[in-house]
Parts: sequence; C-alpha cells; structure tokens
Amino acid sequence: MKKVVKAAAIAAVVSSALLSSFSHAAEKVYKLKLAETWGPNFPIFGDAPRNMAAMAEKMSNGRLKITIDSSNKHKAPFGIFDLVRSGQYDLGHSASYYWKGKVANTLYFTTMPFGMIAPEQYAWFYYGGGMDLMQKVYEPFNLMSFPGGNTGNQMGGWFRKEINSLEDLEGLKMRIPGFAGEVFAKLGVKPTNIPPGELYTAIERGTIDALEWVGPSLDLRMGFPQVAEYYYTGWHEPATELQFLVNKRTFNKLPEDLQEILKVAMKAAAYDMYTQSTHESAKNWDTIKKDYPNVKVRTFPKEVINAMRKANEELVAEKSAEDPLAKEIIESQLAYLKKARKWTEISDEAYLNSISVVE
Amino acid sequence: MKKVVKAAAIAAVVSSALLSSFSHAAEKVYKLKLAETWGPNFPIFGDAPRNMAAMAEKMSNGRLKITIDSSNKHKAPFGIFDLVRSGQYDLGHSASYYWKGKVANTLYFTTMPFGMIAPEQYAWFYYGGGMDLMQKVYEPFNLMSFPGGNTGNQMGGWFRKEINSLEDLEGLKMRIPGFAGEVFAKLGVKPTNIPPGELYTAIERGTIDALEWVGPSLDLRMGFPQVAEYYYTGWHEPATELQFLVNKRTFNKLPEDLQEILKVAMKAAAYDMYTQSTHESAKNWDTIKKDYPNVKVRTFPKEVINAMRKANEELVAEKSAEDPLAKEIIESQLAYLKKARKWTEISDEAYLNSISVVE
Repeated sequence: MKKVVKAAAIAAVVSSALLSSFSHAAEKVYKLKLAETWGPNFPIFGDAPRNMAAMAEKMSNGRLKITIDSSNKHKAPFGIFDLVRSGQYDLGHSASYYWKGKVANTLYFTTMPFGMIAPEQYAWFYYGGGMDLMQKVYEPFNLMSFPGGNTGNQMGGWFRKEINSLEDLEGLKMRIPGFAGEVFAKLGVKPTNIPPGELYTAIERGTIDALEWVGPSLDLRMGFPQVAEYYYTGWHEPATELQFLVNKRTFNKLPEDLQEILKVAMKAAAYDMYTQSTHESAKNWDTIKKDYPNVKVRTFPKEVINAMRKANEELVAEKSAEDPLAKEIIESQLAYLKKARKWTEISDEAYLNSISVVE
Repeated sequence: MKKVVKAAAIAAVVSSALLSSFSHAAEKVYKLKLAETWGPNFPIFGDAPRNMAAMAEKMSNGRLKITIDSSNKHKAPFGIFDLVRSGQYDLGHSASYYWKGKVANTLYFTTMPFGMIAPEQYAWFYYGGGMDLMQKVYEPFNLMSFPGGNTGNQMGGWFRKEINSLEDLEGLKMRIPGFAGEVFAKLGVKPTNIPPGELYTAIERGTIDALEWVGPSLDLRMGFPQVAEYYYTGWHEPATELQFLVNKRTFNKLPEDLQEILKVAMKAAAYDMYTQSTHESAKNWDTIKKDYPNVKVRTFPKEVINAMRKANEELVAEKSAEDPLAKEIIESQLAYLKKARKWTEISDEAYLNSISVVE
C-alpha cells in the first residue's frame, strides 16, 4: 500500500504541475488599458468603447479584459495618439482628425465637408480602399486605426440670427473648430474655440453668435435650444466616424483568436454606435420639437452653400498639392464619393423625395 | 531508481488522463450546420453567412465550426424555417418574409412598402423594440431570429414601357412577389412569380412586361439592362433585411463565450452586408450607366405613388385588425418611422438635397 500511495502522491504533484502550466497557456488573461477622449459617462461616444470591451470580455471568456480611463483620469483628452503610440495605453477611443496638427493626413478619416454620408463612407473604408490608406498613415507611428462609431450627419449648428446671404456671415463669431472652421473663415466668419462647458453661457451672453456641436443626440442636454432659435442643417460633417487606436506591439502579442475578437468587437461596436446615434437623434429631435416649439430648422441659402463648397475645394486642393499621400487619399475619396453618390441619388434620396412627408 | 521510474510512469499516466479531460473540456469543438436559401456562390447574400462563419471560427480558435449548405444541397430554399425548427440544421440564412404563408407575423421583419430605410430600421431593431417583437414571433417555434444583412433600398424594377399614369399599370404583367405584389394587384397589375433563371427570357419575349429583382448590385449579372429600358426607383423594399435563424436548443447547448461569439459574428456580418451592398450597388450602377446608356431612371408619378400608399395602408390595416401581435408590431414600426424619418429629413435628406449633384 505504501508504495502505491507514494506513487499516487508523485502523480498528483506531477499532474498538478502539468495541468497548471496547460491551464496557464489556455487561460492566460490579457489586461489591456484604453484611454478615451471623452469624460466619464459621456453618452453614445463613451458607450462605443464600453460595448466593445464587454463583447470582447464575454467572447474571450474573460481572457481579454479591457479597462477604460476617461479624460478625468489620464488628463489628456487630445493626447490619445501619444498615449497609445508610447504604449502607456494599449488602446484609444477618439477621432482621427484631432491629430491633424501632428500628422496632417489623419484629417481625412473622420469626415470631410461635402463628403460621403455614413453608408457611403463605410463602403469606402471596407470595400473602397479606405482601410489601407488609413493604415498607411498610422503605420509609421506603430499604431493601428479602426472605425470607432459614426454620429450620422451632424447639424450645421445653432444660430441666433437667420442667415439669408453671405453678408450675414461677415464677422459672425462662431464656435466651429477644425477644417470646417477654416472653410468658414474664408467666408468672413470668425471661428473661435471655446471649451464645451462654457458654450451655453457664451452663446447666451452673446460672446459668440453661433456654434456647432453634434446634432440632437448630444445638443439637447447642452441646453442650446434654450438660447438659439435657428438650427441649420449640415454640410461640414456628413458622417463623423470616431476611431479606435491600437498599439501595434500590444496587438502582435495577442494570440490570433484574441486579435480577431478585438477586431470584430471594435467593428460591431462602431457600426452599433451609428445605429445608436440614429436612435438618439430621432428621439431627442422629437423632444426638441415638443419642448422648444420656437426652434426653426433652416438650410443655408444656395449662395452660401456654393461659397462654402468653393472654399472647401480650394483648401482641399492646397492639401493635395502639398503631399502625395494626401493627394492619394483625397483622390480616392472623391472618386468613391462620385460613384457612391450616384447610387444614393437613385436609391434612398429618390425614395425619400418621392414619398410625402410622414405626418 | 526502479521505484522512482515506476512512480513517474504512474504520474505520466494519471496526468495524461487528467490533461486529456481538461483539454477536452476547454477545446471541445462545436460543429454547427447552416442551411441558406441561396444557391452556391450567390454573391453578397451568400457572403454574409460565410463571413459570419469565418469570424466565429477564428474568434473561437476553431471551437465553433459552421458548415454551410446551399439550396442545391438541401433542396429546400424556402424551407429554411422548418429545417432549423426541426433541428435538421442548427442555423439558417434567409429572409423573414418568406415564412408569411406559415406564420403571418414574420412578414414585418424584412422590410415594408413605404417603410424605414436601413439606418432607421437598424435603430428600430436594436434600440426601438424591434428585436423583442421579432423574438415574440419566433419563440413559439423554438427559433431565434437575428438581422442577417441589408440590401439597401431596392429598385422599383425594370419596365419595358414608361409608366405615366395609373392606366399604364392596368393589366401589366409583372414579376413582383409577396406583399408588394398584393399592393400592386390592387392597382390592376397582374403579379406573377417566375423562377429567377427564367426571368431574362420572360421579359425579353414579352411573357412579362416588367420585373423587380434587387438593385444594381444583383440586377446587372441577370442581364436585365439588355432587355428593359426603364429602371424605376424604389417604394416597396426600402431596407430589405435578411435573417439568421438559430435553433434554440443548439444555442442553449453552447457555452456562454461561444453564444456571444455567434451573436456578435452574426451582427457584424449583417451590418457588413449592408456596407457591401452599398459598394456593389455603386460599382454596378456605374457599369450599367457606361455599358447601357439607353437605361433611363424614372420615379413613379405622384398619382401612382399615392395610390400605392393608399393600397398599402389598406392592406396593413386589414392585417392589424386580424391579429393583436400584428397590430403591436405595425404600431411600433409606424411610430418609430414617424420619429426617425423626421430626423432623416433634417439630416441626410436635407444634406443631399442642399448640395448640387456630384458630376
């Protein structure tokens, strides 16, 4: 008996060691950290990385755990590019055009004035060469970039006075950052940037005459319908796509199944944010109409739209002349837009125009 | 020495048995069978289940293997509901409205005439109560149903003669199946159903005067631009969503991580088919315009559209009166459409209409 017991004891020790090493390989947990541009509990934008992390954790049976730090934690809302590049964070959730001051060609992967609407832009990304071009821009920085969720067509903004002509734009003080601000500046607008928390007071007190934010999905909670009457339809951000950034070294260390889980979770969460944005916009626009009957929807007059298009084309041509990769991206987008829009015109656009307004 | 060797030998046997049972649990492979309505190599529609299966297999590290049988194999293209219900297949890829003869309320989960466009309908499914209503309809049959990919707005069809008035529809022989066929029948059209392989010859020889199929994405390869000159914009299928069917017993047997992998893979593949459809429609519409300059796009005249809407509303009201669940679904869709369309009108529709046609 004694010998057998001893043998069994050895067996138990050996097998337990083997099992533990096997179990370790199969069950190794990868803990990744994600930094987001948004503050804590930021609706819709903040839901996208959280939905992504939840799907990834569940699909990996807990082997892929992603924790998310909001801007109050990492203190660098517009520094996500560097945080992920350096490896301080493994992942980021932000928007590509925030890095245009650092890497000019990141501008094109969010949205462009007078550019593609969301279904057209997703088709460009996934079937029209957009993903390859985006990788070309991010590769030198040890980064991978993926679509991170679409806001849908953004509104042209809240104006205290109606815009009836180009003259009405002259000297207008408006919060409109980025490339669209440059376009508007060419038309005499004075673009300013004001922190989100001060926007309501700024327009209420007349420090600014107008502002653009997102659309009903996020504008309602900012209180803008209380302080500006004219809500203009969009031209400058027809399909704002957010961004997931991934540190390439982190990605390469993951086993293949977790790489795929991460990629599919990001893709599904991004598409889903577009769906959620559509829902929240529909719901909140309904509320705005009921609670603020004074709000009037306007579209810029034809002469203003034509002047904006011309200014936009000039700026895009300048960028195209400066850099061959910029030229490649711009030409790819314009060629794709031309084809895709012809389809949109005979499908959704024709359909929407052909049926009476739903009452 | 001898004792030690013996002990090690026992240890090896014991640990190997333990390891094998551990490995078995961790690595158990679930082989699922999917039946699709489509024939082999059917583009776009057939890509959706294949993309889904590829993602699921890669994300599960080979633990979830899905094989796909096309209609030439299972011989029941319109019997997927029964094949999955009975457990003969674990999964299906088809379209919900194919079962309306069997379970009337399955009609509403594909698309409805004058209904929502794709982004609106996805918002209804995932954020507006659509998924719950769909489950309510499929639950009694031991089935789960999920969105399976969107074709985008379908064209109104190919006509050999221009439709200038309601009189031009009188007696017109048209291939237009399903609910839309019922609507058209109220306007004097003679709807017929003809197998896909015979459609080209039927319209060429004048057996039928018109037909609807899908849109440029799939119409080009059918040769229709060669035999009909007028291509009408859509009204009857503004957002045709295909369907993944899952046998509930199969689903319940899967471990939780594989359940989530299956669900996310289906969701991502469905969204992606909408993107692929947009791409293929844009590309093929460009080809049709170049290769068939005789093709003319037309929208039905206002009096025809109004008559179709009226006929549609009457049919929907009849269905609503017949069955409380039908009423619940129809009311949910109409209420959602009303809100979502108001948003579409001030976003994508206003944007598309405000800018000149891209040349």
